Order: sequence, then structure tokens, then C-alpha cells
Amino acid sequence: MTAPVAIVMGSQSDWPTMKYAATVLDDLGVAHDARIVSAHRTPERMYDFAQNAADEGFKVIIAGAGGAAHLPGMISALTHLPVLGVPVQSKALSGLDSLLSIVQMPAGVPTGTLAIGEAGATNAGLFAASILATNDAALTERLKAWRAARRDAVAEKPSDV
Amino acid sequence: MTAPVAIVMGSQSDWPTMKYAATVLDDLGVAHDARIVSAHRTPERMYDFAQNAADEGFKVIIAGAGGAAHLPGMISALTHLPVLGVPVQSKALSGLDSLLSIVQMPAGVPTGTLAIGEAGATNAGLFAASILATNDAALTERLKAWRAARRDAVAEKPSDV
Amino acid sequence: MTAPVAIVMGSQSDWPTMKYAATVLDDLGVAHDARIVSAHRTPERMYDFAQNAADEGFKVIIAGAGGAAHLPGMISALTHLPVLGVPVQSKALSGLDSLLSIVQMPAGVPTGTLAIGEAGATNAGLFAASILATNDAALTERLKAWRAARRDAVAEKPSDV
Amino acid sequence: MTAPVAIVMGSQSDWPTMKYAATVLDDLGVAHDARIVSAHRTPERMYDFAQNAADEGFKVIIAGAGGAAHLPGMISALTHLPVLGVPVQSKALSGLDSLLSIVQMPAGVPTGTLAIGEAGATNAGLFAASILATNDAALTERLKAWRAARRDAVAEKPSDV
Amino acid sequence: MTAPVAIVMGSQSDWPTMKYAATVLDDLGVAHDARIVSAHRTPERMYDFAQNAADEGFKVIIAGAGGAAHLPGMISALTHLPVLGVPVQSKALSGLDSLLSIVQMPAGVPTGTLAIGEAGATNAGLFAASILATNDAALTERLKAWRAARRDAVAEKPSDV
Amino acid sequence: MTAPVAIVMGSQSDWPTMKYAATVLDDLGVAHDARIVSAHRTPERMYDFAQNAADEGFKVIIAGAGGAAHLPGMISALTHLPVLGVPVQSKALSGLDSLLSIVQMPAGVPTGTLAIGEAGATNAGLFAASILATNDAALTERLKAWRAARRDAVAEKPSDV
Amino acid sequence: MTAPVAIVMGSQSDWPTMKYAATVLDDLGVAHDARIVSAHRTPERMYDFAQNAADEGFKVIIAGAGGAAHLPGMISALTHLPVLGVPVQSKALSGLDSLLSIVQMPAGVPTGTLAIGEAGATNAGLFAASILATNDAALTERLKAWRAARRDAVAEKPSDV
Amino acid sequence: MTAPVAIVMGSQSDWPTMKYAATVLDDLGVAHDARIVSAHRTPERMYDFAQNAADEGFKVIIAGAGGAAHLPGMISALTHLPVLGVPVQSKALSGLDSLLSIVQMPAGVPTGTLAIGEAGATNAGLFAASILATNDAALTERLKAWRAARRDAVAEKPSDV
Repeated sequence: MTAPVAIVMGSQSDWPTMKYAATVLDDLGVAHDARIVSAHRTPERMYDFAQNAADEGFKVIIAGAGGAAHLPGMISALTHLPVLGVPVQSKALSGLDSLLSIVQMPAGVPTGTLAIGEAGATNAGLFAASILATNDAALTERLKAWRAARRDAVAEKPSDV
Repeated sequence: MTAPVAIVMGSQSDWPTMKYAATVLDDLGVAHDARIVSAHRTPERMYDFAQNAADEGFKVIIAGAGGAAHLPGMISALTHLPVLGVPVQSKALSGLDSLLSIVQMPAGVPTGTLAIGEAGATNAGLFAASILATNDAALTERLKAWRAARRDAVAEKPSDV
Repeated sequence: MTAPVAIVMGSQSDWPTMKYAATVLDDLGVAHDARIVSAHRTPERMYDFAQNAADEGFKVIIAGAGGAAHLPGMISALTHLPVLGVPVQSKALSGLDSLLSIVQMPAGVPTGTLAIGEAGATNAGLFAASILATNDAALTERLKAWRAARRDAVAEKPSDV
Repeated sequence: MTAPVAIVMGSQSDWPTMKYAATVLDDLGVAHDARIVSAHRTPERMYDFAQNAADEGFKVIIAGAGGAAHLPGMISALTHLPVLGVPVQSKALSGLDSLLSIVQMPAGVPTGTLAIGEAGATNAGLFAASILATNDAALTERLKAWRAARRDAVAEKPSDV
Repeated sequence: MTAPVAIVMGSQSDWPTMKYAATVLDDLGVAHDARIVSAHRTPERMYDFAQNAADEGFKVIIAGAGGAAHLPGMISALTHLPVLGVPVQSKALSGLDSLLSIVQMPAGVPTGTLAIGEAGATNAGLFAASILATNDAALTERLKAWRAARRDAVAEKPSDV
Repeated sequence: MTAPVAIVMGSQSDWPTMKYAATVLDDLGVAHDARIVSAHRTPERMYDFAQNAADEGFKVIIAGAGGAAHLPGMISALTHLPVLGVPVQSKALSGLDSLLSIVQMPAGVPTGTLAIGEAGATNAGLFAASILATNDAALTERLKAWRAARRDAVAEKPSDV
Repeated sequence: MTAPVAIVMGSQSDWPTMKYAATVLDDLGVAHDARIVSAHRTPERMYDFAQNAADEGFKVIIAGAGGAAHLPGMISALTHLPVLGVPVQSKALSGLDSLLSIVQMPAGVPTGTLAIGEAGATNAGLFAASILATNDAALTERLKAWRAARRDAVAEKPSDV
Repeated sequence: MTAPVAIVMGSQSDWPTMKYAATVLDDLGVAHDARIVSAHRTPERMYDFAQNAADEGFKVIIAGAGGAAHLPGMISALTHLPVLGVPVQSKALSGLDSLLSIVQMPAGVPTGTLAIGEAGATNAGLFAASILATNDAALTERLKAWRAARRDAVAEKPSDV
């Protein structure tokens, strides 16, 4: 059976960021499949991936890219599945270019965009889970438990370390 | 029966932007409920809304706000449902403040952020539909048809007008 | 007796910045109480803290947060006490996101915002003291002395070191 | 008897913004005194104003300026009173220059900064009132009532107009 | 015979900008073919266009788009021909998003980017002509004459009008 | 015989960036000539270089500079050859100043601008090759092979390292 | 006798801004000579102007330009005279591009930069006068009187109009 | 006899930047006097310095500051002498705040602004020398020689190191 969540990224160098999405999905017991799909170096692969993603059984796609980050939006253009975009922090402009390239999509082709960098990747995993949870009561409980655990882990007072 | 999509906004002045979300949901036959819920002026209303949204039957929440736009992220903090954020264009900084206030959420509390302004509101509606469509074959077909119609409406050549 | 100044922050990771507020309040002989109150992970705790702050005896609240920094503004929405916001320097955008998320509040819900980072935390402490000093002649004298000492410590000429 | 709040601004052209501070103080029954004090054109007047403000009986100073906005910070340097800064929207850079010039004060000399433009001016008035209210139970009640009225004025649903 | 220059754009709304490229190519006697090719609404059309552009006989491609502007870079990914990108001025962010989305391409997939808006479109036409002129002496002369005429049209002194 | 591509830069300190252009041209078998030509320190040298570049036999010019980066645009003003600009990453503003100084040329004087830093330098080399390839079938084949090799080197899945 | 101040600009379209420099110099009784000298369209004219400016008798040069504004810095490269730069407000980026292109000059080639737009042009005129006044006691007195008149024109209180 | 150039800065921490102004003035044989004059911590000292600078015999003032950098503009407000501003690179915003706080002065009170950081400090020294050179033929020759030496030191080709 296909994993419900695909995690795609433009390059191996995006993995240290994008693995945070994989980790939180693991924590929540959501299967996922991570692939390198470059909009710029492998446009045919991207085309094939995006057009077949629904038929492959994916329900949600997480796509991460940096700089002139076209991967999330192009996948959005090629599938009706919900696509989540993670702006990877870029060298010169710290991910501001990645963010604007992903979030400023024209009307008709949405990409749900998360924060720049690792926090965004974690949150893409969580958001994908929340989508799946709209129709999965057990996952909803796991998601609520994950959130409650995070809440309970917050100390009352700061400590010097 | 409750509408599956809530559209909330911080102020009446956000409605000219946010109604684009309502319009596209109407086009796709997805029921929705639009409310004013201000994080800053009516924080109790926001708490009540967000904490009860799942029990009310909502599946997805669309939240729009401008400037120091806290509404989408605070709702995300108070519900496990997927929350979509629309940065409303602000007067002085053209929505850059709205965008950063919505998208730069810390790990653990995701908001799926769309583009600044009307395009973002339309896309929030589409994204909400795509979430619901993950478990609704008829909606999937309507969504695909909506997308195909948009594709087919693109002229081959530009025309002077 | 309750300390007059609360110092709250979204995360333990904000403490290395926010402790500068505590230090200067110590220097000025103003009692303070530092707590972790996360808008995003512990929204109920924030709600309780902010709504009870006046009754607890607090006179001024200092709140620090980074990224999509909603803590200061949400506390402002929940109490009539003066709230000071400290934008903590964020990783990707160096605190520009924190600053805009805190300062660009809509009419009706003010947050007095200080500089990004440690300087802002020190200044939040000083500003809190200046608020209390409007009705405390002894504190006014200590504040004036602190300022005078800073002035007198400025060398006449730069030195190579 | 001196008004407790001074509203100063660099130029007549700042008044259409700064009068929002005066209006909300009127609403709250807080006396105020508005003056033009230009850091750049009348530096002596600024020195005199700031150095004598406490002796004149002022408790809080609101200062608005645009562009390379030095007025709020320079007053902060010359008095121990709490100083609130309002970044006036500038022509070319929409007030981003005003904001950074006011908020990025070094450690030791705080300016409590509000939002760019009219919202910031209104909020400076409110913040000044909240400072005075720390020692004025009647003003506290008026402030709470003003906030409650704002809350109650928020409609439940948006309306097409 | 195919025109050597293709001018493609994401939407009819880009034509008022992109027609400046057509005009200057007309002035220089360079044939061109203008088409609407949307990366987001007609991704298949874009794939077909870009993959066949060289075989169709095009020598240079000019692509204009705004916001999350993916068209120029995606065409660059799909053809070895030189691709020139024109950032169309966007509503909220004035084309800064368009510019960064086009220019910040990763190593391996270049897009030669021109200025935001009409000046950029004119310059894309001129740049395309300069490419063709590297192997066309007559066009080189026309290009030099066009430049000389522009130079000679510069008045010696400004005049009040 | 003259190399068809000139690589010029404002300073020795730009070479660690600009050598990426040289490397990719080497890979593609395109001769090039690298020189230091500073717009600001050696304006006469720049004038001579640019005005004689076509007569020297150059077909394309790659120019890199940082900060107030005037070299690419000034060469564009002095020759009809296609000029490619590489914004070198600057210290304080990370190359945003370099980028805007190069790309925002007025109508009539185009500079084809690539990304900030090393990626931009590599892409300037590739773009120069693509210009020459418009009239060189063998180079076209080498360029296509280079691109295909890059495509084929993309792994299917990310790997932890 | 040559006027001591040259006012040069890249285009007739800069004159509505740059004439503010002329006006204030007229007010101060300082002769000036306004010319159009485009770095990009008339580079030879610029070289001739800048290299001969000292011999022509100019003491100070004011240069205004917008967008990728190279005129001030290139003149600085070609003369040892003090050069003042005025960033003209540009269409898309409101003069931020003009400002960075002018001010971020490398070590060795200074341009004294004023504010974006009309204020900057007025101030360039004033700054030029202050340079000449370092050796002209009568001009010093006129400059001090001009400043005093500006100071005296500041009203004590704002007025509704 | 008083040195003709004053170099003032807000803090000892600015000296590692500002000493570049001193060094180039030494190279050119121009006497200078470096002092710490903080607008914010020692406003009276600043007031005294600026108002007496002309009578002390200074001809030009160089002022460096970071963050909300008010020193250059406030000195400009208090003296008719030409004032050069150096934006010191700040921690969070890399000197963009310093730059805008210094350069965006209102009409009537000019500050000639140089680049952010060390390059700007060197250039402030050079610019001060060019001002003095307008009435000092020997200094003009030294300045021209300094520039010529810089020009002659530029290598013809980049070298790997």
C-alpha cells in the first residue's frame, strides 16, 4: 500500500531540512515516501511524479526547495492534491527568496506554505497529518496527544543553563 | 448540518479580501460559514471558536488577518484542525508584515499560508476544497473540472484591448 | 507581595535574551517574576496569565517572542495593563519577522515594542521601571542615577584594544 | 495643572497622524498637550522640552516622526519619563525607515514603539493611558470600558456593503 | 519560417508589460511570436512549448511572469536555448517577489533576468537582439544605430515642462 | 584567436565567486579570458575594455561585482555585445545591493542578470555558452550533454550522510 | 566664471526631483549649472564631464539617478571632487534600488548620499553650499540665516487645517 | 591648531569601524580628532560638541553610529558644517537600520551618507579630504596621488591564491 504522504525535495542538500517532516510523521505513525524531484534538473521526473501522485495513492504532498523555489508551485499546477511548501533557508537571502517564490502563487493554484527552514518542515509534517486526520479518528487522537505532550513539556519558569 | 469550512477574519474590513474564499467554495459546492473573530478585540470569542470548531463539525478553518496578524496562528494553537492563513494586504507595508506574522510559526503549530490578498483568499478556498476532496470523490471531480476550466480558458495569444 | 513586573517568554530558548530585562530590573531594585508562557504551545496558560495578571498585582508585563511572535500582542488583547514587547532575534530573518509581528498591532490593542534582541530586553526592563517610576519618587531617583552612571561611563576618546 | 501626556511631533505634516493619539486620550478623559518639536529644525527647543518635561508635570511623552525619525529616541535620551514613539508613514519607504529609526534604540535608552501610522498613534494614546492607569483606578475603569465597547462593537458576521 | 524570438507570458494581464519587448524587436526588425503559456494554469502547454522551442526554430525565449514567477525558470529547465526573464510588477510586493522568483535560480539552470516591469521588457527585447546579433552583422548595425539614436536624443540640459 | 567570452570582475576578491563561470566554460570547451576591470578604481580601463571588446573578438561579456555594482551596467552602456551580470555576495547586505544595482537597469541598456554568488557565476558561464550555441551545433550538443549529465546525477531518494 | 556647483542627472525625468537642489542653491546665492549626463545612454559624455569637471572650475558635483543608479558613483570614480548622490524615487521599488546603488560604494571611491527623492535633492544643494562655505564666510552667514529662518518658521503647536 | 576633521562615534564599539576613517586621513596628511559622543547616552556632550565645532576650528565632521543611528543627523541639526554619516553594521539587521536612520533626513538638514561599515568609514575620510581639497591645492595633489596609486595597484588578471 502506498504511503499517504510524499515528501519531495529539489536536492540532496534539502534533506537535512526536510527530514524534520519525516521525523514528525514517524512520531505520528503516518507512512511517507521521500524522493528527490528537482523542478529544474529533472523537470520530466517532476511532471511524471505530480501527474501520477493521486493515482499512486498519495493524499498529500510536501515539497521543499530553496532560492527560486519552483517545485511546490509546479507540483500544485500538476495535481489536484493538497501541496504543502517548505522554503529551505538559502545562502545569500536566508530563505526570503524561497518563501516568496513558494507563497506568492496566483489565484487558482494554491500551495500551503510553512515557515522557512526546519520549523517549516516539522510543521509541514504536522499539517499533512492534520489533513489525513480529517478522516481518521485514530490519527486525530494521536495528533491531539502529540500536541498535549508538547504543551505539557513547557516548563513554568526559565532556567539558567 | 455544519458547513465543513469556517472562514474567519479579524475585521469587517477583511471581508472584501476574504469573500474570494467564499466565492470559490460556492463554485465548488462546498458549504462554508463566515464569521468575524478578532484575536485582538475579541480574544474570548476566538478561544471559544477555535476550541469548539472540531466539535461544531468544521473540518478546515480559513483565517485572514492583516498587519500583526495573529488570528491564523492562534487558532492553530487552539485546534488540531488544519488552519489556512490569508495575509491581508496592509496599508503601510503592503502585507509583508501580515505574511511574516502568519507564516513564520514555530515548530509544532502549523498554519498553511497562502499569498497576500485576494489571490491568497481564492487559494485558501481551493486548498480547503482539496483537503476535503481527499475523502470525497465527487468533490475531487468538481475540483478537477474547475481546474480544467481554468486551463481551457487560457488564450493562445495575448490580445490588445 | 506580588512583583510589579512580569517577564514572560514563549520558550526557554528566549531566556538568554530576556534575562537582560531581569538584570536591569535587579539593578534598579524592581521585583519581577519570570515565566514561560507560550502563545502557541500553551494558549490556555497564556489566557489565564493575561486575564489574571492585574488581579495578581502585576503593573507591567514584558513579553518576548521570536518569529511569528504573537505572545506580546495576545497578552495586550487580554489585559488592560501596559505590555512591552521584545522581538527575539530569529534564525532565518534575524528578527525582522519578530519585530513586525509585535509592533504592527491594529488600533485599539497597543504593544510598546523595543529593539530586536538583547538591547530590546534591557530596554524593556528600563521602560517598565520608568512606568513604575511615574508614581514612585525613590525609583525615579534610582533610574536617574542609573542613567547618570551610564552617561559618566562614556569615555572621551576611543581606545585601541 | 499640567496635562499628564505630551504629544510632540516633528512637523505640522505629522498632525493628521498624531491627532489620533489626541482623540483617544479625549475619549478616555486624559488631558494632553500637543506641540511641534522638531529634532532637526529646532534642536534647542527639543532639548528644552525634554529636559523640562518632568518638571513641567508631564508623566508620559508621545513622540511621532517620519523618515530618519530621531525625535522619539532623542527625547528618550534627555528624560527619564517613558517615551512612546509613533513611526509616521513616509513617502518613499512607507514608514519602514521611520520604524527602524525609532525602534532600534541601543541598550540604556528605551523608546516604546507603536505601529506605523494612524493605528500607532491611536495605540500610543491608549498606551499612555494604560501607564497612567497603573495608579488611577477611575482611569482603569474607563480604559476597561473603552476596550469592552470596542469588543462589543465587533459584529458576528461580515456584511456586504 | 519561424520567428527567432518567442515572447511568452503567464497571463493576458502580463501583455501590457511584455508588449514593450515586442515593440523594440519590431524597431530592430527582429521577428517574434507572442504566446500565453502559463506555468501554473497550463503546465502541459508550457512543457510542450519549451521542449519543442528549439525544434520550432526559436533561438531565444523571453518569458515574463509576476508574483511566484515560475515560467522563466521552468522553461530554462526544459530547453538549452537562452531564456530571458522579465519580472512583472506585482500588486502587493511591487515585483520584488517576481524578481527573486526569477533571478535566484540554482547552479545549472540559468535565466538571464532583466529589470522589473516595462523597462525590463524593453531590455529583454534588446538583449534577445544582441544575442542574435552575435551572428548577424546587419542586425548588429541596426542595434548600434538604435543605441546611437537613443544617445543622440539625450538633451544637454533639463527643461521645465 | 580571441576567446569568445570575457570574464571581468571589479576586484581580485570577486575571483573566488567568478571562477565558477570559468570552470563551467572549461567543462563545455569554451575559451574565455578573465580580467580585473574595476568600474570605480580603473574607469579608463573599463572604458577601453568595453569599447574594444567587440573588435577584440569577444562575443559575450560576463561581469561580476558586489555592493554598488556598476561594472556590468556600465559595460552594457559601452558595447552592443550581450553582457551578463553576476551579483557578488556583499558583506553587510548579502548581495541584495549587488543584485539591485545590476538588474534594475533603465530601458535601453540591458544586463542579463544571474543569481547572487557562486550559482550565478556558474549560470553566467552556462548562459554565455547557450548564446554561442545559437550558432554552434557542436557546442549545442556539448551543452545538452552537460545538462543531461546533471539530470542523470540526481538520485531518486535522499540519503543520510 | 564657472558656477561652483554642477547638477547632473541621468534623464529629463529626474529634473522634477533635482530642481529642488537648484532652488535651494538659488536661495543661498550659489551659482549652479544643470546638465543631463546619462551614465547609460551617454557614457562618453559622462566621462568627458567628470574628467573635466575640476578643470572647468566646478568645486562640487551633485548627481541624481534612479533604479540601477550608476551616475553618482561613476562620476566619483572619474574625479577627485566631492560628489553628492541623490537617489531618485523609482517606480517599482520606491528608490530602495536607487539608494543602495548609490550609497554602497567600495572603499576608495566615496559618494556622499542624501535621502531618496525631493528631500534628498534639497539636501544635496544644502550640503554643496556647506562645502563651499568652509572657505566662504559670507556664504556661511547666508547658510546660517537660511537655517535660522527654517527654525523660526516652526510653529509651536499643530493646527487643524 | 585644531584638526580640521572631527571623527565622532556613539560608542567605543564603533571604533573598529571608524578607525578606517582615521587611517585614510593619516595617509593623506589630514589632521583629525576622534571622540566618543553618544547622542543617546551623552546628549549634552553631543549638543556642546556640535554647537561649538565650527568655533573650535573643525571644517568637516564625520559621525558613525549603528542601529537607530541618530548621531550624524542630530549633529547636522546643530551645526552648519558639512556632516558625513557612517552607518555601522548592526547585529540583527546588518546595518540596514543604521543606513536608513542616517540617510533619510528631512529636507533642510543634510547628512552626506557613506556605505555601511568599514568601506563607508574609509570613504568618509576620503570625502572629508575632498572637501578640504576644494581649497587646498597640495591636498588635492595628495588626493589625486592616493587615487592614482589605488588605480595602479589593480592587477590585470585575477590570480588563484
